[in-house]
Amino acid sequence: MTRYRATLAYDGTAYAGFQRQAGDTLTIQGALETALRRVSGQAATVIGAGRTDAGVHASGQVVAFDVSWRHPPGDLLRALNATLPSDIALQAIAPAGEDFHPRFSARSRTYVYRLYNRRIRQPLWDRFTWRVEHRLDVGAMRQAAALLVGEHDFATFGQPPRGENTVRVVYASTLALDAQDAGLIQYEITANAFLKRMVRSIVGTLVEVGRGAMTFTEFEAAFRAANRSLAGPSAPPMGLTLVRVDY
Amino acid sequence: MTRYRATLAYDGTAYAGFQRQAGDTLTIQGALETALRRVSGQAATVIGAGRTDAGVHASGQVVAFDVSWRHPPGDLLRALNATLPSDIALQAIAPAGEDFHPRFSARSRTYVYRLYNRRIRQPLWDRFTWRVEHRLDVGAMRQAAALLVGEHDFATFGQPPRGENTVRVVYASTLALDAQDAGLIQYEITANAFLKRMVRSIVGTLVEVGRGAMTFTEFEAAFRAANRSLAGPSAPPMGLTLVRVDY
Repeated sequence: MTRYRATLAYDGTAYAGFQRQAGDTLTIQGALETALRRVSGQAATVIGAGRTDAGVHASGQVVAFDVSWRHPPGDLLRALNATLPSDIALQAIAPAGEDFHPRFSARSRTYVYRLYNRRIRQPLWDRFTWRVEHRLDVGAMRQAAALLVGEHDFATFGQPPRGENTVRVVYASTLALDAQDAGLIQYEITANAFLKRMVRSIVGTLVEVGRGAMTFTEFEAAFRAANRSLAGPSAPPMGLTLVRVDY
Repeated sequence: MTRYRATLAYDGTAYAGFQRQAGDTLTIQGALETALRRVSGQAATVIGAGRTDAGVHASGQVVAFDVSWRHPPGDLLRALNATLPSDIALQAIAPAGEDFHPRFSARSRTYVYRLYNRRIRQPLWDRFTWRVEHRLDVGAMRQAAALLVGEHDFATFGQPPRGENTVRVVYASTLALDAQDAGLIQYEITANAFLKRMVRSIVGTLVEVGRGAMTFTEFEAAFRAANRSLAGPSAPPMGLTLVRVDY
């Protein structure tokens, strides 16, 4: 039995999130465990670095599982990718130490949230991007986003998984305009760990600032108050992608 | 009755192409005519600038239709976009002259074909990008692509719609690497008009050059021979997008 560490990409549109659920509900964990069982004949439990919500995507989710496999790891990757549905694919695989845990061993996670600022919907973008109709002041959003860097209580932007504390360390929080399509805005955030729904709550609140429904001062006050009820509405899942986990 | 000219974007994945077909087959034209009937109560025929194939996308398809509409054109756009399925949306609309015909009045069309060069599939790209496993020499592909610019007989790369001649004028034929993801390759071609399947045939043949299955000299000879049987296999539809029609 060897512990493997794998990087996973998925289009989360059709899935009820990463975490396995009862019944026939489609989940990323469930699909991966089914593929592992078919390929190895063994019932393995897959652990993920981040429990992405329903409809959220990943290009760099990290998972771990224990399995007996006599061939090179590259063969396991190919066999799994041939078995997995077309919207999920392993990107890399390697044996890991017995004590490797994708969630507890992680030092930081990076998420990207894509949005576009446009009155008319664009079907080529809607699968991976949130359309915001209101005209956005990206400069104001950038200023508010920068405020989040550092060790802070993020209770305004999410609940802790199991009654843990709500202090997290944000290493980067930046907004960039797409070089090709100026209407596309990309928010990137790296932190040691995230509260539940934290990125979508931050993005939804930044959009309140961008459209002028909340001033920078109000955003700062809401953030400092560490009060969940002061956040703006959460941004929808399709714009969010887990892009990297660092160890 | 007024003739309207509209720009249309669609994710073509679920459609059997632009042109209406018999029965319940999903087509872009059919979806647009259904929406027009619901919104205006009139049976209008939609004409498109390019008859995109099954699975091909558009960000700048141009269509025309005749309809009686007493309100501003912007209201017609909003009503149609509220009625159309989520994978189709008008991007712009304006009244056009009675003699405007999206196909015959067009001076040029621009298509983009996206591919990526990677051994492992990437689900976040697969909807709009063709994955090529073989290592590609982009320099060689670029050299071959440049050969197509000018007025030439393109019979190697496609059939004419109705026994017309196969001479077309290509204004631009370029390959670019994505600034963010070097693995993403974008081919862009502008011509006065295209033969059936022409872009996919060109891209498929350029990939033969890129992977070393065809030399530049062989590509040039195949092109000059104006012989359909000398083209490489056609590239699949999901990488292709009609991005612009100029009048």
